[in-house]
Amino acid sequence: MPYSEKVLQFLKSRGLSTGDEVQVEAEGVKLEGYVLPREELDFGDQDALLLKLKSGYNAGIRIDTISSAKKLSGRVELERFPKLKEVAQDPELPPISFISTGGTISSRVDYLTGGVAMLFSPEEILYGIPELSSLVRVRTAERLFSMASEDLRPEQWAAISSKAIDCLMQGDRGVVVLHGTDTMHFTAAALSFMIKNLNAPVALTGAQRSPDRGSRDADMNVIASARVAAHLPHALVCLVFHSSPSDRSAFVLRGTRARKMHTSRRDAFRPVNDLPVARVTDGSIEVLDPSLKPRSDEAPWVDTAFEDKVALLLAHPNSPPELMDHLLDKGYKGFIVQGTGLGHVPSLTLEGKGSWLPTIKRAIDESAFVGMTSQCLYGRVDPLVYRNGRLLMEAGVTFLGDMLPEVAYVKLGWLLGHGFGLEDVRKLMLFSFAGEIADGDDPSTYLY
Amino acid sequence: MPYSEKVLQFLKSRGLSTGDEVQVEAEGVKLEGYVLPREELDFGDQDALLLKLKSGYNAGIRIDTISSAKKLSGRVELERFPKLKEVAQDPELPPISFISTGGTISSRVDYLTGGVAMLFSPEEILYGIPELSSLVRVRTAERLFSMASEDLRPEQWAAISSKAIDCLMQGDRGVVVLHGTDTMHFTAAALSFMIKNLNAPVALTGAQRSPDRGSRDADMNVIASARVAAHLPHALVCLVFHSSPSDRSAFVLRGTRARKMHTSRRDAFRPVNDLPVARVTDGSIEVLDPSLKPRSDEAPWVDTAFEDKVALLLAHPNSPPELMDHLLDKGYKGFIVQGTGLGHVPSLTLEGKGSWLPTIKRAIDESAFVGMTSQCLYGRVDPLVYRNGRLLMEAGVTFLGDMLPEVAYVKLGWLLGHGFGLEDVRKLMLFSFAGEIADGDDPSTYLY
Repeated sequence: MPYSEKVLQFLKSRGLSTGDEVQVEAEGVKLEGYVLPREELDFGDQDALLLKLKSGYNAGIRIDTISSAKKLSGRVELERFPKLKEVAQDPELPPISFISTGGTISSRVDYLTGGVAMLFSPEEILYGIPELSSLVRVRTAERLFSMASEDLRPEQWAAISSKAIDCLMQGDRGVVVLHGTDTMHFTAAALSFMIKNLNAPVALTGAQRSPDRGSRDADMNVIASARVAAHLPHALVCLVFHSSPSDRSAFVLRGTRARKMHTSRRDAFRPVNDLPVARVTDGSIEVLDPSLKPRSDEAPWVDTAFEDKVALLLAHPNSPPELMDHLLDKGYKGFIVQGTGLGHVPSLTLEGKGSWLPTIKRAIDESAFVGMTSQCLYGRVDPLVYRNGRLLMEAGVTFLGDMLPEVAYVKLGWLLGHGFGLEDVRKLMLFSFAGEIADGDDPSTYLY
Repeated sequence: MPYSEKVLQFLKSRGLSTGDEVQVEAEGVKLEGYVLPREELDFGDQDALLLKLKSGYNAGIRIDTISSAKKLSGRVELERFPKLKEVAQDPELPPISFISTGGTISSRVDYLTGGVAMLFSPEEILYGIPELSSLVRVRTAERLFSMASEDLRPEQWAAISSKAIDCLMQGDRGVVVLHGTDTMHFTAAALSFMIKNLNAPVALTGAQRSPDRGSRDADMNVIASARVAAHLPHALVCLVFHSSPSDRSAFVLRGTRARKMHTSRRDAFRPVNDLPVARVTDGSIEVLDPSLKPRSDEAPWVDTAFEDKVALLLAHPNSPPELMDHLLDKGYKGFIVQGTGLGHVPSLTLEGKGSWLPTIKRAIDESAFVGMTSQCLYGRVDPLVYRNGRLLMEAGVTFLGDMLPEVAYVKLGWLLGHGFGLEDVRKLMLFSFAGEIADGDDPSTYLY
């Protein structure tokens, strides 16, 4: 679609034409880039001025919001901008698909509040990262939805699982899921449980920095993820992310063992009680954990049942056990407690005064599952060291080893979605479906 | 008090006398040590057989619970066991006091369930760590209470604060608080806020390993803490803990910037968004942060008001906002939310379906405080990057920078305990009382 009359008028009145370098300011955000021809893109808002940013990304800025536009000295010829439909796709390269779900990696400048919101298409990313075309054949690129990752729910986890399977069944060597970073580790855990007989890599990636920043990390994460989808020898749901603030390499992290540990760093995702399963550099994948399930010709399928009425509760000094009571009253069927230390809750000396024990006993009497994890995050829970732990174990609490609280939460919802009884859920929570729980402690995993 | 007839009979029947090396088994726990003369100790259960463990600690084992007792080949002469009253106290050494609150560091083998429970006195620790006598003069050593740290509540935080001040007012150079590790960082934060005009160090320490294990860490932590109490040049509430699994050095961590990051490692406590303020080795304290408030002649005082009706809530995919509603119905006055990433909650695309926004708006309408922190732990929250953040800020949520969620929780209860209005609380939550919030990000603090 061409630019609207409004945009054409705007450009004309300022002596600007496509290919010119400009600096525009919109709602407090300053952007510099080259004016893109509108015809390049068959989607988006006709009232938006499109810029090719220095980052290689495109930004669309609604013309109404532009407070100033300054022509700079630079200029590029239009042939510098490849058109998506003209990106050479080598039929010999391994086919992969992109599934876009939202997040910073799919963002453009947000006109509503001035921040970065979630309105970008995967075509835009391919358009912005021409390196991909020598690495993989992009068979499909679909925007499944455009949501901030904090808004995702089990129904989106199920949709992503189904879509990923569709892609693999259509012959993709692997799938890249573009996702907001905030809750990517929840989604990765969900996919790890919901996709059965996985036969190839499903790589989740995202961006910690918005595309209008010099420190943007999206390009490298997407390229590394495409490489993982095409070439990782394992059938694994994984996160692919910067291993350090530099662009030198990315880590492949097991989907059930990763956690966002920093609000803004490029290397925010870290393995917890685990090591990276592979390291991706420019040109190669170094497998660090050869024990993983290899790719196969199995037919994957999805199993996305999920019980919504599960909760993740934090136990700490003065924490009210009545939150669990309230949720029991509402019919909740399972709880993951983030206990203190080895898996404790206020209990021993507090009967009748803030103790969690009576509520936990009630939950188990009512056939709800109560699983214990640790807010320490690193290490494993153990009911046998202290009396508070033994009392919880005797009350029927299941201690979940070295499983992350977030992963335990997702796993519990998934298991309860299948209608298992309490005894079965107890056993299955301790069974490793996707590497989420293990014996043995490797000291080198601490604060990795 | 001497041993009871029952114990004397037990020893006699097995040909055992004080000083003999024995192996006893009680409720599944095997212990080896030397039989202690009962008269050494003026406290405890007369029916308990006392052993000096290889660790240097004493264990008391109730005679009824002993299933087997085997005499081993070793023997020590009784003069090897110093009596507390005979420990030479050099009047020239700096006076300090110990306050024991419970936890592993004050534990002995627990007869009730076979684990380690909380029944030990600080005299026992001094008796077990003779090195202290060349380092400090132990002016007082008081068992304030014997609680697992997960059971501590604001009233205990207040009691510890008051007791520490009493000690300092009596002329101590510093105070060591022996404390269970699980929630030590909550207590350290509470003391940081509750003690005003602090004039000397208050060092919290504990043990990750029970005293009957070869890997016990209590000795070094106590010795390092005594050194900190006597010689740290700063007036600071701090945690003193192993810097690594080895016994080579301990870190001094700011009381508002530490967190238990591992369930069982000796170096479980780490600084978050901060670096250690000092390193303690055998013989010296290396100050790493010279910017801290120095010791002074000020008179400290306590300010322990605390509003119990505050809560720390975790926001994650599918998390029920109704927990906040429920607590509002119960009269709760403030909330710290552990949001995702930069400080988000399910909100934007979820109006009417799991969005936290309506509940948060209700809370603020009802003059409750809502503060935002991040479950990432490392980094800082920022409402200005994404739309969900802006919507929360516009709703009146206070974004709490780089403050730890646990510390924000304690600080909020403390501020609300003083009856401040919402506007004042908002300002004061962003004011640094004890180094708990700061501008500037030091990349070297990540996963330190």
